[in-house]
Amino acid sequence: MTISEAERGAMRRALALAATPGVPLGPNPRVGCVLLAPDGTTIAEGFHRGAGTAHAEAAALAEAGEAARGATAVVTLEPCNHTGRTGPCSEALIAAGVRRVVYAQPDANPLAVGGAGRLREAGVEVVGGEMIDAAQAINRAWTFAIARRRPFVTWKFATTLDGRSAAADGTSRWVSSRAARLDTHRLRSLCDTMLVGTHTVEVDDPELTVRDEVDQPLAVQPLRAVMGLRDLAADRRVLNDRADTVHLRTRDPEEALARLHALDRQHVFLEGGPTLAKAFLAAGLVDEVVAYVAPMLLGSGTSAVANLGIQTIADALHLHVTDVTVLQGHDGEDTNVRLTMRPDQRRN
Amino acid sequence: MTISEAERGAMRRALALAATPGVPLGPNPRVGCVLLAPDGTTIAEGFHRGAGTAHAEAAALAEAGEAARGATAVVTLEPCNHTGRTGPCSEALIAAGVRRVVYAQPDANPLAVGGAGRLREAGVEVVGGEMIDAAQAINRAWTFAIARRRPFVTWKFATTLDGRSAAADGTSRWVSSRAARLDTHRLRSLCDTMLVGTHTVEVDDPELTVRDEVDQPLAVQPLRAVMGLRDLAADRRVLNDRADTVHLRTRDPEEALARLHALDRQHVFLEGGPTLAKAFLAAGLVDEVVAYVAPMLLGSGTSAVANLGIQTIADALHLHVTDVTVLQGHDGEDTNVRLTMRPDQRRN
Repeated sequence: MTISEAERGAMRRALALAATPGVPLGPNPRVGCVLLAPDGTTIAEGFHRGAGTAHAEAAALAEAGEAARGATAVVTLEPCNHTGRTGPCSEALIAAGVRRVVYAQPDANPLAVGGAGRLREAGVEVVGGEMIDAAQAINRAWTFAIARRRPFVTWKFATTLDGRSAAADGTSRWVSSRAARLDTHRLRSLCDTMLVGTHTVEVDDPELTVRDEVDQPLAVQPLRAVMGLRDLAADRRVLNDRADTVHLRTRDPEEALARLHALDRQHVFLEGGPTLAKAFLAAGLVDEVVAYVAPMLLGSGTSAVANLGIQTIADALHLHVTDVTVLQGHDGEDTNVRLTMRPDQRRN
Repeated sequence: MTISEAERGAMRRALALAATPGVPLGPNPRVGCVLLAPDGTTIAEGFHRGAGTAHAEAAALAEAGEAARGATAVVTLEPCNHTGRTGPCSEALIAAGVRRVVYAQPDANPLAVGGAGRLREAGVEVVGGEMIDAAQAINRAWTFAIARRRPFVTWKFATTLDGRSAAADGTSRWVSSRAARLDTHRLRSLCDTMLVGTHTVEVDDPELTVRDEVDQPLAVQPLRAVMGLRDLAADRRVLNDRADTVHLRTRDPEEALARLHALDRQHVFLEGGPTLAKAFLAAGLVDEVVAYVAPMLLGSGTSAVANLGIQTIADALHLHVTDVTVLQGHDGEDTNVRLTMRPDQRRN
């Protein structure tokens, strides 16, 4: 079944609504919806503003009122079919008299699935899959977590151009520029969980909060997760009241991710030391790598990446470069390289 | 003294002429010249086509003939004042009756210097320094070599994202993609000398020629320089007849560069192993670094950069990122990072 030019335009608008800045991160996907009259004009719009608020379809229907009868709903995600904190969107669309639904991404959430089928049963025309790539990109971690049943893992590390994270005497301030450190806070704010090992907590005592450009903590903070068997001393900064903290008493990356998945976590920002990174890399549980490469040569010192047990070049871990930018700061510039793991080198 | 809009336009044109593609590398700077009539219209143009051919001014004067009388010569380099394979341009301009000369870059070559003074003596109006940066950029290595009395040194290396040039078992094919290897040939072709150590010749036996995209050697090849005290076995490929080769029997980078300077070499492409690179880095004799960073992690193996004797982060070698590009190839992509040494970390 094809869709009209008006519907295509409405989908572009719905995607932009879904990506509205400022919506707090939460377990729910970001969704946009546009209601079109039979002549293709826009009746109403809506988008989801975070857990506990109306779904995009409900917001648009509320705005439209009686005008929704006979309308076409253009929505970035297949309407849900379950009752959570709000009722099923499929039923709301049927009750409002919507005649046709065009959606982008199918809802693979096992709790919500079935909206398209329910709509068709009720005699509504349904077309799915339009602009699916753009819709998935808006909810990359959510889409990943639903499909793989674990959070997406971004591993960040800082290195000199020759692969060192500290000099021979252990000094490392600063291998990354201030611009790179600010950028790290920006990336932290896009994840719902920051993960380090107990060793990092013991040695570095990081607070693990996200701070803005003037070094103030953000109002909404990601979960702080500490992984490892050792107890945490009560005075560690990661246990302060600036954000929630969970101690995952395991050394197994798979188990740690399973527990975080059970906590509805979708995007883990891995910032621990080389041992933790090695465990995730070896398990094939790193999905994305963010490297801050400082224009600096040391020639010796601590390797930025631990021994992975790789013996020969054929066994190297291969990645794809997705983005390269140069971050400029008063104290120098860093090359920021973003990469994704090659599909054959990561695990479900 | 100011210059007119017509002269400014002519200088832009002269710069473009100087940078005409296809001129073979040689000891001479690239120069462009435009002759303007008193009303600002162009009478003639010329550019230097390589050692042994006419200088830019002479080429333009030949094209102009009698029309040069009373003209303004706009030229990217101060006219020379010495008799080499061609006569001094200062005298040629005076003899042709040129009334005014506008040039960009002063000629600091001790053999050629004095053209502006000679012209002024003869009553010609002279204005220098217009668009000097653009002119110097066209002859970067020549300008550097004249001022520093040694060749400019570009050091190229290939590394994984974690600073390795080979795996634990010594395998390294390929740490760089085919696109990176092709790009290396392009950079080689822009230098007049390729430099390796005797160890590299002994172990890897490289031919050290520049090849095109279909792996054919270019007609004009840079000089092949091998540095070190050991004799070269007669069957080494670097000694074949594809290009000239010089054996510099020294281990001292400064001495090697002095010898290459005496051979009129202006731009050395350093491609040797870690020992050679270390010697140049330690001596402050690397001016530019080209790093091909493969999106690959090894975690162990040979370090791409040798131990430089740096103990603490404050002593790290600092560079400036001048350019970052992603090279795409069928076998993957490399991040190409070009950097210059910070001025305080290189030596005259």
